[in-house]
Amino acid sequence: MLKYYPEKTEVPFIHQLLLGGVAPRPIALVSTISKTGVVNLSPFSFFNTFSANPPIIAFSPARRGRDATLKDTYLNLIETKQCVINAVTYSMVEQVSLASAEYAPEVDEFSKSGLTKVESEFVIPPGVLESPFRLECELIQMINFGEGGAAGNLAICEVKLIYVDEDVIENGKIIPDKIDLVARMSGDFYCRASGDSIFEVVKPVGKKCIGYDQLPGYIKESKILSANDLAKLANVEKLPQFNKIANEVLNEKLPLELKDILILNRFQRQGNYKKMFEKLKVFYPNETLNSYLDSAASLALKNNDIDYAWRILLFRGGL
Amino acid sequence: MLKYYPEKTEVPFIHQLLLGGVAPRPIALVSTISKTGVVNLSPFSFFNTFSANPPIIAFSPARRGRDATLKDTYLNLIETKQCVINAVTYSMVEQVSLASAEYAPEVDEFSKSGLTKVESEFVIPPGVLESPFRLECELIQMINFGEGGAAGNLAICEVKLIYVDEDVIENGKIIPDKIDLVARMSGDFYCRASGDSIFEVVKPVGKKCIGYDQLPGYIKESKILSANDLAKLANVEKLPQFNKIANEVLNEKLPLELKDILILNRFQRQGNYKKMFEKLKVFYPNETLNSYLDSAASLALKNNDIDYAWRILLFRGGL
Repeated sequence: MLKYYPEKTEVPFIHQLLLGGVAPRPIALVSTISKTGVVNLSPFSFFNTFSANPPIIAFSPARRGRDATLKDTYLNLIETKQCVINAVTYSMVEQVSLASAEYAPEVDEFSKSGLTKVESEFVIPPGVLESPFRLECELIQMINFGEGGAAGNLAICEVKLIYVDEDVIENGKIIPDKIDLVARMSGDFYCRASGDSIFEVVKPVGKKCIGYDQLPGYIKESKILSANDLAKLANVEKLPQFNKIANEVLNEKLPLELKDILILNRFQRQGNYKKMFEKLKVFYPNETLNSYLDSAASLALKNNDIDYAWRILLFRGGL
Repeated sequence: MLKYYPEKTEVPFIHQLLLGGVAPRPIALVSTISKTGVVNLSPFSFFNTFSANPPIIAFSPARRGRDATLKDTYLNLIETKQCVINAVTYSMVEQVSLASAEYAPEVDEFSKSGLTKVESEFVIPPGVLESPFRLECELIQMINFGEGGAAGNLAICEVKLIYVDEDVIENGKIIPDKIDLVARMSGDFYCRASGDSIFEVVKPVGKKCIGYDQLPGYIKESKILSANDLAKLANVEKLPQFNKIANEVLNEKLPLELKDILILNRFQRQGNYKKMFEKLKVFYPNETLNSYLDSAASLALKNNDIDYAWRILLFRGGL
């Protein structure tokens, strides 16, 4: 591992590392207004939600890296304590990028980006019509981390009103493929959070999950099962008992000749597993058989058929 | 738009909305240690970086939604003021999910998840060997947002040491496809930030970019060019001048017969654009021609050939 000590490293390099390693970052397209009524619109990816009760979001309108000056968004927030946070979708990402250019303070980024103002209810700054998820917010605290270039300022805001486009909701939940959000990576890179990039991980079964440490050694030592495969196996309430031979394994998963299957099935019917295992070992050198069964289990895990994977592997354990 | 007032809405529903609309969220796999030496490892997606100078990250070990109790990570941070933040990659996501189960305080999530401890330099909690990006951190401030269920606690930490796996870096920069990070969405959904989900948006050219408002009306009104297409066209230093006929447009993009092309080319050579346009209008009804040219421009924009797109569109503007 490469090691970097912030105190001994140039700020732009530390900045790059944080951008690359803390990612993908959600984007807040922030609308603010000055005391004199000039609207500002600018995207920030040092942003997240931090509490549901009360609902809190925070973002960092940091000092510019070049000259440590403060951005209009920061100055407006200090003056008027209000903002609208607009989520950024794939269909508007180029416009949002246009809003991030540094225009003179009197320039309205809405007209430069072609995005549309929509009136707010609790706050004065307008929302962005094109965004399917908007938060009207009030600043409750501003924390300054420093005075130098790229010094962050944490704007902590309470959410007063949430708008959601009905088209992105299904059964009361926002669906990734429908809202089609984008996030920031390092450099010019963005990430589109929909389609093939979305996957599911079944939540652990809590205190009852057996955990990695309870997995049998021969499973942990498999050269074919991945760390993710093992973790899926560990996410069961208890170690399943090997109480019947998995017929599917014999009949479908092993490249056996019919006569061999018949022999094995006979032993199985008789409940004579010891004989069955011995016979199986004659058919296959141990390593080939184990690899074959591990691959079958890994495939079952990819299809999230945890129970079947366990049956294959316990069968292998009994060999 | 649907509207939700947090003060009048159930907390779990507000929580769901924030999880769905503020996404994808980077994941901090946080390692802490208690005064008595019990290590805890738990993932948090209310997390981001907020400053490069000094380097600051923050995350929220929130109160449990169910009973408003505090998590071990929070208690450990208050006791010992230290943590290691480990980035989460696709290859370890199932193990990280296992670490998120609620085990008894004395249980070591490293052994439950099968992740490997690695000694730290500035702090006592160990890092996670499998993570290619680790931050040794000291707590500088803890902000409590409330006492109820799902109330957030903002742990603001200064980064003392950054570890990066040399395999994920190229020319001093972390490459998305190499680090292969994952992020949290709503529900059981995750987002993998590599492969086809990654795309580039060219940074705006700053004060010099013409902006959406300077685009010619016939371009803004196109039924074929998307908002993203228009934003790309607006991201140029000045409105290009139409000073020569785009031969490629005539020869390649229009479904014209050879004899027609020869006629048009003759007018072009003569510099008689007026005649050329008139002739072109005879060949095509206006709408068909415009649609054809807009589609050609849109394709050029998809390939990020902004200059060629502009030439096609200015040609169309001259018709």
